[in-house]
Amino acid sequence: MTKRFFEHITKFIEIEEGDFQKIITFFDIKQLNKKDIITEATNKCNFNHFVLNGCLQMYFINDKGAERTIQFAIEDWWMTDCLAFHNEGTTDFYIQAIENSQILSISIDNQKKLLDQFPKLEKYFRIIYQISFGATQIRMKNLYDFSKEEIYFDFIDKYPEFAQRIPQYLLASYLGLTPEYVSEIRNKSRS
Amino acid sequence: MTKRFFEHITKFIEIEEGDFQKIITFFDIKQLNKKDIITEATNKCNFNHFVLNGCLQMYFINDKGAERTIQFAIEDWWMTDCLAFHNEGTTDFYIQAIENSQILSISIDNQKKLLDQFPKLEKYFRIIYQISFGATQIRMKNLYDFSKEEIYFDFIDKYPEFAQRIPQYLLASYLGLTPEYVSEIRNKSRS
Repeated sequence: MTKRFFEHITKFIEIEEGDFQKIITFFDIKQLNKKDIITEATNKCNFNHFVLNGCLQMYFINDKGAERTIQFAIEDWWMTDCLAFHNEGTTDFYIQAIENSQILSISIDNQKKLLDQFPKLEKYFRIIYQISFGATQIRMKNLYDFSKEEIYFDFIDKYPEFAQRIPQYLLASYLGLTPEYVSEIRNKSRS
Repeated sequence: MTKRFFEHITKFIEIEEGDFQKIITFFDIKQLNKKDIITEATNKCNFNHFVLNGCLQMYFINDKGAERTIQFAIEDWWMTDCLAFHNEGTTDFYIQAIENSQILSISIDNQKKLLDQFPKLEKYFRIIYQISFGATQIRMKNLYDFSKEEIYFDFIDKYPEFAQRIPQYLLASYLGLTPEYVSEIRNKSRS
């Protein structure tokens, strides 16, 4: 199952199978059941997670007690509160499995040791973060630029796999729409 | 003037002064006048920029012809459309100097050569992107969570230097508020 992670790394950098066997020892492999929460708001955020299979959701709970989704992660995606992870601080976010999932988790301490021992992985993580940051620049533009309907259709157009797998109420929570509104535009597009 | 860049890099990684003299040859030093545009929408986005002094603004123009600001960069900040830069593709954004500025610019080709020759810089860029991505996760949360007034006060609280330097209409364009609204809450907070 960790082969998926090896294949992901080697999309960006060259790495020997032998080195990968050492690299993987810095990670914990975790089996999550749907609804398992692996990070809780107000706690330290010491881990970064790579999805081998399944789906994670990152969200916060606002003053009114409503969940607002910031991000999803399916296979080959990383997920953590990056600033809290980097600063070894507390987070405002929850991370929850929304499907039965298998993930690789690395602690901040282990990440430091890993990168000291295998500095060539710096390039891998640099590219991952560069792409992630770039994607949020575009997301920010869309949030400012698009109507609610356009936000929905842009998302299902760009990420058809997410749109199929993610329950409608979570998709609404991510897109900043009400579930009723998502249902309405979905029905309208079918008619 | 490039000493500022040396000091910035050495906040994150160790680097010899002699190596820095080689590193800096991969960059162009550019003097910009206020209002100079260095990247235009629909063009290739082949450069990444580090601000030595001054201030850059990244924005797009929406269908109604209005400018919407995505990001500012003052001293020690990097600015580019990261996905377009990474993919060597075209951008939807403009980058403009909003003060007389001095910047270091690196082309995507030179960045590749630089990182091949000085792989220890991968760590520097990894940290820069990790922090940038983390900051946008928090910004996304605030966009979903805060009232317009809270967005304004959170910004001037976190970035007092920006709030003093950036014209009110640009601040409004960044925060997704009208200039009139910024003026109104600014006056209200003074009374």
